[in-house]
Amino acid sequence: MLQQKPSRAVGNSQEIEAGYVVGADIGGTSLRLALADMDGKVVAKWKVSTAGIRDPHVVVGLIHEGVEELLRKNGIERSLLRAVAAGAPGVTDVEEGIVIATSYLMGWRDVPLRALLEARLGVPAAVENDVNTAAIAEYQIGAAQGVRDFVFIAVGTGIGAGIVLNGRLFHGMDWSAGEIGYLLVPGTSVKPVERGEPGALESIVGGEGIRSQWQSAWRDELTQLPRDLVATEIFDHAAAGDVLAQTILNRSAQTLAYAIYNLAVVLNCPLFVLGGSIGMHPVFWQATREILEQRDKRVQPKLLRSTLGADAQVNGAVCLAIEAAGSRVLSS
Amino acid sequence: MLQQKPSRAVGNSQEIEAGYVVGADIGGTSLRLALADMDGKVVAKWKVSTAGIRDPHVVVGLIHEGVEELLRKNGIERSLLRAVAAGAPGVTDVEEGIVIATSYLMGWRDVPLRALLEARLGVPAAVENDVNTAAIAEYQIGAAQGVRDFVFIAVGTGIGAGIVLNGRLFHGMDWSAGEIGYLLVPGTSVKPVERGEPGALESIVGGEGIRSQWQSAWRDELTQLPRDLVATEIFDHAAAGDVLAQTILNRSAQTLAYAIYNLAVVLNCPLFVLGGSIGMHPVFWQATREILEQRDKRVQPKLLRSTLGADAQVNGAVCLAIEAAGSRVLSS
Repeated sequence: MLQQKPSRAVGNSQEIEAGYVVGADIGGTSLRLALADMDGKVVAKWKVSTAGIRDPHVVVGLIHEGVEELLRKNGIERSLLRAVAAGAPGVTDVEEGIVIATSYLMGWRDVPLRALLEARLGVPAAVENDVNTAAIAEYQIGAAQGVRDFVFIAVGTGIGAGIVLNGRLFHGMDWSAGEIGYLLVPGTSVKPVERGEPGALESIVGGEGIRSQWQSAWRDELTQLPRDLVATEIFDHAAAGDVLAQTILNRSAQTLAYAIYNLAVVLNCPLFVLGGSIGMHPVFWQATREILEQRDKRVQPKLLRSTLGADAQVNGAVCLAIEAAGSRVLSS
Repeated sequence: MLQQKPSRAVGNSQEIEAGYVVGADIGGTSLRLALADMDGKVVAKWKVSTAGIRDPHVVVGLIHEGVEELLRKNGIERSLLRAVAAGAPGVTDVEEGIVIATSYLMGWRDVPLRALLEARLGVPAAVENDVNTAAIAEYQIGAAQGVRDFVFIAVGTGIGAGIVLNGRLFHGMDWSAGEIGYLLVPGTSVKPVERGEPGALESIVGGEGIRSQWQSAWRDELTQLPRDLVATEIFDHAAAGDVLAQTILNRSAQTLAYAIYNLAVVLNCPLFVLGGSIGMHPVFWQATREILEQRDKRVQPKLLRSTLGADAQVNGAVCLAIEAAGSRVLSS
């Protein structure tokens, strides 16, 4: 994917016959679908909770249900569905169409998601890591439009990066490039990480990590705020002047800034796009950007907020589905 | 470069007519040349001091002198010289043939090295960063033969990396990917780096940094060794049991191990090759490898020593020159 400039990759309807695709974003708490035409224009959306649902067959069943409902409610004939694509929250072998591993939340191991989707829906399918689908969307219609070297960083419960080099997603040899939650930077723990544990960077920059830092630092005499706050609430309070919340914000922003600096150095990369519910928080973005700007005159990557927000993943899946439709044949 | 498998890139003499090339390694202390046939077999070498020499025209003049001497002494007709290539110690625009910037030692800025070489020698020329030429050599005839994703790390006075992704050198958008001397890892300074200063990682892992750490830590009562030692001597003494030298060794090895771990995480890269006079030191390599092995079961890149040693750069330049000969025409 991403071999072509945005305008060509999702545009040029003359080359592609009429039809529709569906992009899916499989999350630990919800499943989101978008129905789009072959120009990538989203016609309708659909969403369902996935709380407590882990079985891949059940997830594929939900996608099937959503696709049928989207087509029916929009008066689109089933035969006009050209392809589907899904972003999954884990390491994904795009060539084989297999989700190799997701976090403990889903617990998937070697799930042949593409084959399951194709068998169920009868159209070509594509699969990709969800942070990578978001990067695709930012590249094609979002904050990184036309920038051939950039990194999309999603900060939600955890943290991950989608790396685009020379206009193509960089996957790494085992499909796990960009798993930046494990990075070691000044201030992170250097304790070896056991399987299933959050990485050193994730412990400070991810939503769960920010929350647990707050709880560890919280004392009655230090703040009037409650001990039970989520990351975005902590950042809201930092903006409103709470000193303890500011300490947590600054530590997270500084740690993320160090990680971004390192990525900019290694990859010689001029643009970073922050997404995810926490990465999108304006106060967090602003604090990270300021620290980055003060570091080093030679290494000054631009740090933008995602312009697509929570839609990035599903929009990227739409782009992938349009590509998959181009192949016109099932993979299996 | 590096588009092809080693056997094809430097082999297959049927496709290339008889002739010779010269590879050059431009260093701050010496200039090394290797004369090779079109199969990459080195016929003869040549070396001259560059101490105190900074002017690019003088360096190109020395290369010219060396080339003529190599041809003459080996009874090779001038007309059989097909191409030359040079590795330079700085950020190099391979497409335009320009050395954009070298360290303070050389002080070059936007030197059109390829054009200078072609004008002087009358054959096609190629230029590349010297750590990248070493990576080419490790990939084609050295420790990374056939490994399509690896990072070559040169630790000498400073530190730099040549990144090979999917069998191709990764240069980054401004030709400065892999400038890992600036990486921030636990234990490095977080002080913003001014232009011309060594980076955070380089201050601890590079030869000059190791030496100055030793001098800072040195006390009469802590060691019987002299205060004035170079990095490799400090490592020799660490191996022989000097406790202060071991402290310096361990700190450097740990810091390098953190950087390698980060690179392995971001790039999903299975192999690292250590080169350069300090990186090649067996005690340093062994200490770094052991720390890396203890870190994280999921991320276990292999760490090998260069098999080409001080010849890596010049051998890589030979590979590049053979490629440049394939083009048969001057660039300008």
